[in-house]
Amino acid sequence: MSEAPLPFDPIAEAERHWRERWGEEPARAMSAITSVMRAEQILSARLNAALEPLGLSFPRYEALMLLYLSRRGALPMGKIGARLQVHRTSVTNLIDGLERDGLVTRSQHESDRRTVLAAITPSGRERAEQATELLHRSLFGTEPMDAGTMEALTALLGSFRAGADGFPLGATATPAAG
Amino acid sequence: MSEAPLPFDPIAEAERHWRERWGEEPARAMSAITSVMRAEQILSARLNAALEPLGLSFPRYEALMLLYLSRRGALPMGKIGARLQVHRTSVTNLIDGLERDGLVTRSQHESDRRTVLAAITPSGRERAEQATELLHRSLFGTEPMDAGTMEALTALLGSFRAGADGFPLGATATPAAG
Repeated sequence: MSEAPLPFDPIAEAERHWRERWGEEPARAMSAITSVMRAEQILSARLNAALEPLGLSFPRYEALMLLYLSRRGALPMGKIGARLQVHRTSVTNLIDGLERDGLVTRSQHESDRRTVLAAITPSGRERAEQATELLHRSLFGTEPMDAGTMEALTALLGSFRAGADGFPLGATATPAAG
Repeated sequence: MSEAPLPFDPIAEAERHWRERWGEEPARAMSAITSVMRAEQILSARLNAALEPLGLSFPRYEALMLLYLSRRGALPMGKIGARLQVHRTSVTNLIDGLERDGLVTRSQHESDRRTVLAAITPSGRERAEQATELLHRSLFGTEPMDAGTMEALTALLGSFRAGADGFPLGATATPAAG
């Protein structure tokens, strides 16, 4: 990504400037959010690179897995958007891409014909399993995080997500919701 | 972003599926990385929305602040890329946008004429200060994180970034590096 490895941490360096000019409180917040943003860039780059040989991006993989793990192998488009927390247009693009590759098909809901369903195909199931095996080998690009780091990240960001996304903290769906 | 608030945590729900099928280790990693990705989406949406009235996006703000905080108010394009850890083409786009708005100008380096410098203008300095004040009001969109959460995130992600980006953990630049 960058020109060359830096001899220093650019976020720690920015934090130092921030603290000197504006004090501890904004420096702490700036440092936390830019850390999350840089971590996301690193992870996305690793995951997309790992999935490229299978013709998948990480967002497409996420959509495919949602269908793979659903009870019927099919979900309404709106539900996919809600679960992936992306816009309707993004869902359309993701499913378009998966459909072009024969991993997903679209169909109308039996009882509510205005509802469009996306369903995973046998080839989609196979690709989902290959991709999952591939991502598990690198533990989703998390190297060199240890188990404690990963658990702490999930917990710390869980409260933040619950606040922003409006779900009750720690709640999982009942089996019927899948 | 999503259709409606979910009654459950979609990441906790995915983690439950993952643990049942593939065990604890990949479930933990999947949960951590998707938490980072969702947190980044929430933060980016909040920051970009906050900056929109000033005609800035968060990546443009970051580039502007790098120049604002530099000793001379000017940096070579390559150095901007290294510090922001983005591709050369992204730096070009960011600086193009800032230049169009009169916040930055490009010039040639005095001693090395192949080096292009980006320099912040007086109007750029003013905008940088307005934007910083605006972002400080919401502590960079971190609500409802507390100080301990922010510090823990910075620390946990610092080791990860150091591993991926190749800088020595915790190192800041000497004053001469700005």
